[in-house]
Amino acid sequence: MATAGKVIKCKAAVAWEPNKPLVIEEIEVAPPKANEVRIKIVATALCHSDLHYLVEFTPKENFPIVLGHEAAGIVESVGPGVTEFQIGDKVIPLFLSQCRECRFCKSPKSNHCENSAPPVPIKAEPDSRFTCKGKNLLQFVGTGTFSEYTVMNQIAVAKIDPAAPLDKVCLLSCGICTGYGAAVNTAKVEPGSTCAVFGLGAVGLAAVMGCYAAGAKRIIAVDINPEKFEKAKVFGATDFINPKDHDKPIHEVLIEMTNGGVDYSLECAGNVGVMRSALESCVKGWGVSVIVGVTSMQDIAARPIQLIAGRTWKGSLFGGFKSKDGVPQMVKAYMDKKVKLDEFITHNMTLDQVNDAIELMKQSKCIRTVMRVSPQ
Amino acid sequence: MATAGKVIKCKAAVAWEPNKPLVIEEIEVAPPKANEVRIKIVATALCHSDLHYLVEFTPKENFPIVLGHEAAGIVESVGPGVTEFQIGDKVIPLFLSQCRECRFCKSPKSNHCENSAPPVPIKAEPDSRFTCKGKNLLQFVGTGTFSEYTVMNQIAVAKIDPAAPLDKVCLLSCGICTGYGAAVNTAKVEPGSTCAVFGLGAVGLAAVMGCYAAGAKRIIAVDINPEKFEKAKVFGATDFINPKDHDKPIHEVLIEMTNGGVDYSLECAGNVGVMRSALESCVKGWGVSVIVGVTSMQDIAARPIQLIAGRTWKGSLFGGFKSKDGVPQMVKAYMDKKVKLDEFITHNMTLDQVNDAIELMKQSKCIRTVMRVSPQ
Repeated sequence: MATAGKVIKCKAAVAWEPNKPLVIEEIEVAPPKANEVRIKIVATALCHSDLHYLVEFTPKENFPIVLGHEAAGIVESVGPGVTEFQIGDKVIPLFLSQCRECRFCKSPKSNHCENSAPPVPIKAEPDSRFTCKGKNLLQFVGTGTFSEYTVMNQIAVAKIDPAAPLDKVCLLSCGICTGYGAAVNTAKVEPGSTCAVFGLGAVGLAAVMGCYAAGAKRIIAVDINPEKFEKAKVFGATDFINPKDHDKPIHEVLIEMTNGGVDYSLECAGNVGVMRSALESCVKGWGVSVIVGVTSMQDIAARPIQLIAGRTWKGSLFGGFKSKDGVPQMVKAYMDKKVKLDEFITHNMTLDQVNDAIELMKQSKCIRTVMRVSPQ
Repeated sequence: MATAGKVIKCKAAVAWEPNKPLVIEEIEVAPPKANEVRIKIVATALCHSDLHYLVEFTPKENFPIVLGHEAAGIVESVGPGVTEFQIGDKVIPLFLSQCRECRFCKSPKSNHCENSAPPVPIKAEPDSRFTCKGKNLLQFVGTGTFSEYTVMNQIAVAKIDPAAPLDKVCLLSCGICTGYGAAVNTAKVEPGSTCAVFGLGAVGLAAVMGCYAAGAKRIIAVDINPEKFEKAKVFGATDFINPKDHDKPIHEVLIEMTNGGVDYSLECAGNVGVMRSALESCVKGWGVSVIVGVTSMQDIAARPIQLIAGRTWKGSLFGGFKSKDGVPQMVKAYMDKKVKLDEFITHNMTLDQVNDAIELMKQSKCIRTVMRVSPQ
């Protein structure tokens, strides 16, 4: 490809400072170094984590940055030592890497990787692959997909089926795997069980889909916005609870509905109070509650007896999927019509409209907005 | 037996009110009703739960009561419908029943029983089997073993090997199974793993023994009383940490010692601050922290990221043992020299000396005091 080995000038949405609109800029993307892959981003979605970073995570020293991490694209060029990828491969960038060499990657118990980019990027000047107006730009969680091109280490890139539609499977880069896997991999929902999912954004709806796929017989969808219930039904929810309709605490409502509590609860709202309710909604003896939502820096809390009585409190990162192994499998599941993706997409836009997408999410008026970035 | 069907007058230590010395009284013990067993208590130990109830759990309406629940005895007589037990059987009373019929008993996931006595006895007058000076006495957690005789439902009695020494195996009625099982059944400690046990009372020492039995290669014993370390070594501990010897938080010390944290931590101190430390001492990715200690009514707390990073927070009640199944197996393990019991016993007394035993425990000067109650 004519651009291989050269700096690419391209379009990107730059977050120059916290809590301000992104600015579409021309940026320079360096060629990939050893073990790196330069990817033409075809489609990227907006995830709550992007918004969270922009709006709530405000230290100025962590800007300017290129946000975006839920994306799909095509390999433009590879750096020295890369044998796994070739120009033209369809790929999904991963905020969680899988080096296959560290003790976490080698353990079947975990999907962590000791070589993953830190969740908050550290401004390591020589490592920046993005520059704009003479300034280095950070890449959000090592990705930075609100850009026509990005550069990533090959341990954080998954090669996928060449037939996969990138403007759909981009959702598997974060939210959908996170929710689905939290049910299937982390909670390990069993056939015939009763589940509750708190918070019906994309992650929560994907958790509902995961519970359904695992064979749960009853899936109680909980949200304070009843407009979400119709969508939850599409993914398999059987019961719908709006905490605002009840005077008593929501865990009491669920315990009454289920003769003692649910077998599995999944907290996808990112609220520590809801996390407590989700735990307390579980049946004693074997109830498992999984924290999926990203939160601010508050503590979770509960009475010790909640755990001593036989409940288990877990958390899930990227749905427990080992990323390079799991994402291509989920792409296959979508191609085989075993996993829904299209139903999550409420809006299609272009990268130029990123601030409109942000506004929609702030107002909870979307599930997922997919932005077209480059032509394929 | 001459006493069958009759009220037995016998000696018991009565707690007439909170936080006062127990009083040795003559009490009346009713004959067993349907499905009940009257047991001659041969030996009883003092457990922290007895002390906790007497000293910290002070509502006056939950007195007078006969404390004691860690015991062993001999069946004196049985009520109508009892076929599992015969006069003369050696038995261990259980604060946690196993009815074999409820959904918890039928599930392999849990050792709870829907028909267990509540942890705090409700003063149900017609259900009292103990009276003294015209007053009904409560039976602590449905047992009440600081008495020469007690009456219990057969679902809360385990028949054991007739050759078992009752003044030793009485310890399996609570603390030793609780700690040992927390490691083996609840944490499911794996061979070659690294464990930390916080709090080296009988439960903590039993947890050390459980980690060792499960094949842990490194067992870090943590206590602010270094006098406990010698005993911990007997049960298999390999490392000894006194938090008072360190300026930094104890979880940081453990993380440094273990290259990122332990695989399993067991909190046996009953302190919510220690529970947090125990969780934070676990390695990300797969660390499991188990709350074993009984606590007052404070909240546990932690950052959600502790769980999202792959840690699991659990609790253990009676070490996850299904009581009627597990206790006879543990008695066998002791008889086969696979489980130590003698090493927990630091003092032998008689029931008359119960207040001395309480004083020793208050001053942390004992591991277990076993009191002889009736001759065999």
